[in-house]
Amino acid sequence: MKIAVLGTGSAGRALAGRLAELGHTVSLGTRDPDVTRARPEHTDLPGVRLATFADAASGAEVVVNATNGAATLDVLAAVGEENLAGTVLVDVANPLDFSAGFPPSLSVKDTDSLGEQVQRAFPVARVVKSLNTMNAALMVHPERIGGGDHTVFVAGDDADAKAVVTGLLTELGHTDVLDLGGLSAARGTEMLLPLWLRIMQALGTAEFQIKVVR
Amino acid sequence: MKIAVLGTGSAGRALAGRLAELGHTVSLGTRDPDVTRARPEHTDLPGVRLATFADAASGAEVVVNATNGAATLDVLAAVGEENLAGTVLVDVANPLDFSAGFPPSLSVKDTDSLGEQVQRAFPVARVVKSLNTMNAALMVHPERIGGGDHTVFVAGDDADAKAVVTGLLTELGHTDVLDLGGLSAARGTEMLLPLWLRIMQALGTAEFQIKVVR
Repeated sequence: MKIAVLGTGSAGRALAGRLAELGHTVSLGTRDPDVTRARPEHTDLPGVRLATFADAASGAEVVVNATNGAATLDVLAAVGEENLAGTVLVDVANPLDFSAGFPPSLSVKDTDSLGEQVQRAFPVARVVKSLNTMNAALMVHPERIGGGDHTVFVAGDDADAKAVVTGLLTELGHTDVLDLGGLSAARGTEMLLPLWLRIMQALGTAEFQIKVVR
Repeated sequence: MKIAVLGTGSAGRALAGRLAELGHTVSLGTRDPDVTRARPEHTDLPGVRLATFADAASGAEVVVNATNGAATLDVLAAVGEENLAGTVLVDVANPLDFSAGFPPSLSVKDTDSLGEQVQRAFPVARVVKSLNTMNAALMVHPERIGGGDHTVFVAGDDADAKAVVTGLLTELGHTDVLDLGGLSAARGTEMLLPLWLRIMQALGTAEFQIKVVR
């Protein structure tokens, strides 16, 4: 599958690298590839093509938004509506607002969500909210804790798009994919973040996950 | 231990009944005991004394707020500051606002919480937020699902009060009590509710719980 991952932070790099290992054709989108390559911490990921946001997404069947929430709408504008038409747009971002320090507040919540904002801004895309409730390492290697027995959520208004995402999650090793229904359920998964951050502080690690026991 | 449970909804009745079974001296507080007794669905709970809010809390070491979030501050005003002085006040309520139908929104969130509102209104009490992230049956019988292997959170500014609550949770059968730190962490557990409600809809049951896998 031809996949574009937007954002070169820990989530974007983890997803791009692992999806390429799994055999997908992966482009990693960034604002300016030359600037990204010039960063001291930058290393190329095997099999991943670094490109501008628009170039990365051009022709992709799946676009993964792994940018930070504050940048998301600007980045998708840089991708361009023409490159998002018909794509499965996996939104893994969270609307964290660090303007008042840590812990962050949420810039959108309760009666709206970042996932819904993205869908309204780009109705041509088929947005699926997923993977925003765990750290980057567990997104791509869920077996790192608890034998992989924990839960990943999907929410979206397009059932076919959710099936594509569920397939990719299964490839990544996720064994408990819980479909929460329409995209408005992104309000719920994004609002987990304040609790997630408190748990991280209490445990002293981001290597934990949520399991829905039933 | 002398315990007052405020509120005769499913959470209040479950907690009062089970804490009495465990040997505690339990009063169940309601606005007007005669009105409560006259309700067709009312049955007395063995060993539980039905009383007014103030009468129930008088002399109690632990007061459990199991009222609904919209009523909480009014109910605690009816209890009276003199009956809350020094008590461990376990806040299991959620600030759900059903004024626009289902799903509810939260009346306080993100940068404040119901738990903190309660603490500010009654600084004489030692507020511990707990048990607000699960349904009533699982509060008192965690073994009903997953062999009881799931997580209950505590948050509060008084370490001794949290130790008392942790002891009661252990008596109730909870095996994974996760201390999230100060009371501001109530923002996190209360903001789980939108996700909790979506999960309930997806599963078609409230008999599920969250496990923090680590």
